[in-house]
Amino acid sequence: MAHDERPIGIFDSGVGGLTVFQEIARLMPQENLVYFGDTARLPYGNKSPDAIVQYTMECARFLLSHNIKLLVIACHTASSHALPILQQSLSIPVFGVVQPGFECLMQATRTHRVAILATTATISSSVYQNLIRQRCPDAVIFPIACPLFVALAEEQLFESAAADLIAEHYLQPLQAERIDTALLACTHFPLLRKAIEKTLPQNVKIIEPASLCAQQIQEFLCASQLTNQQSSVPTHHFFASDHHVRFSTLAKTFLSHSINPSSPNVVLGFQ
Amino acid sequence: MAHDERPIGIFDSGVGGLTVFQEIARLMPQENLVYFGDTARLPYGNKSPDAIVQYTMECARFLLSHNIKLLVIACHTASSHALPILQQSLSIPVFGVVQPGFECLMQATRTHRVAILATTATISSSVYQNLIRQRCPDAVIFPIACPLFVALAEEQLFESAAADLIAEHYLQPLQAERIDTALLACTHFPLLRKAIEKTLPQNVKIIEPASLCAQQIQEFLCASQLTNQQSSVPTHHFFASDHHVRFSTLAKTFLSHSINPSSPNVVLGFQ
Repeated sequence: MAHDERPIGIFDSGVGGLTVFQEIARLMPQENLVYFGDTARLPYGNKSPDAIVQYTMECARFLLSHNIKLLVIACHTASSHALPILQQSLSIPVFGVVQPGFECLMQATRTHRVAILATTATISSSVYQNLIRQRCPDAVIFPIACPLFVALAEEQLFESAAADLIAEHYLQPLQAERIDTALLACTHFPLLRKAIEKTLPQNVKIIEPASLCAQQIQEFLCASQLTNQQSSVPTHHFFASDHHVRFSTLAKTFLSHSINPSSPNVVLGFQ
Repeated sequence: MAHDERPIGIFDSGVGGLTVFQEIARLMPQENLVYFGDTARLPYGNKSPDAIVQYTMECARFLLSHNIKLLVIACHTASSHALPILQQSLSIPVFGVVQPGFECLMQATRTHRVAILATTATISSSVYQNLIRQRCPDAVIFPIACPLFVALAEEQLFESAAADLIAEHYLQPLQAERIDTALLACTHFPLLRKAIEKTLPQNVKIIEPASLCAQQIQEFLCASQLTNQQSSVPTHHFFASDHHVRFSTLAKTFLSHSINPSSPNVVLGFQ
């Protein structure tokens, strides 16, 4: 049987993409993985489209130098602005989180009254709004930029009065809008899920695309005969552009016990 | 009389340094000024010392290419980590905001029980703590990292319930400490002054160094015969590393009516 030992590359502006990393590691425990977080330039969510494209391309090149077989842009902001350009310019398959996010949302909604919670740059790109309107022209979409959620997650203030109040600040206007589904279209936002749940009406489904993203990658690797069939223990390499204790600390928050940063097959490095 | 028409260069990681720019423009209305905000890589406050030094050096080089006669590092994080290196490597005088911050604090305190409110990187550098202890070994110092204040200021949530709650989150522990002075050791923090005032006991003096910083520069220029004696209207040039509407919007928040971005002697450009 064909197999391909080369690692899957996973990119995010910081540590948020580790939620996607974790789903991939859970679903494909035999795959070698290499993660890169651009901690020297985060956050991307308040940068311009040009800066986002340039940074994402530079980070993709770093991961390509690790001989990856597939690249995952595990950041909605980077996926929104840079995915088509990367898909055109790179010789390997490139997956983003926007398409699975969109599909999760369409599967979950019954009334087509939906909210997109994301960074300012993702909302400004209109990528979700355009995809939804193409599939469902009558959809009523509430795009909400929640930039402070990123800072709250980075400061590890997930379950705090401050998180609750800021969630209320952003999401209060949704209360009367009878939405049935809200998409967490930023990899940081699942960490604030409790605060978000408290503010939205109880019947609103809150969804995130990490699991579907991992599933689509698995299907693609199987169909293309690119899975790793080696029986040796896979390696998990983590890289960050800024050498800061912060990355390691935050990584622990994002990674569950299923990935142990101190195990011998896990490497934490810096560019 | 000797004079020097070359501009003063003012650097910040973003728009916060415009509080210093404004003081310089107010005190020295005849001087040409060129401002550079590294909006493509902000914030600096949660980056590593190496990254902060490298970025500050690159930005200083950009300003040097505008033939500046003096450089002001109008960012506490950059001043804390990069000032001595810049002073050693550049051929022009370099001023920071830490020394005036320290002097303001020592002038204001009577009891020598003081708080330093700053970014995580500034607090970690211990630069304020070391300066204060050298001058006053018995001082009782409360260094408080308030990283979310930067995000709140950038999102223009200055006077909001969220700002009040986050101020309380950071500053509540100070209430029982009988401090008499708190230094705003980040150029973003003056925008959150009201929220900070509400949380600290009424008799605490809240100080910021922008005005003393401008005064020290004026004294230096006079003593060195480097002031601009030309009678023509001076130019104010603003540059940012990321071409984003955000910079212009935020700049308006920081700059008072005394500087009009639409006047003919004001230029807003991008690197």
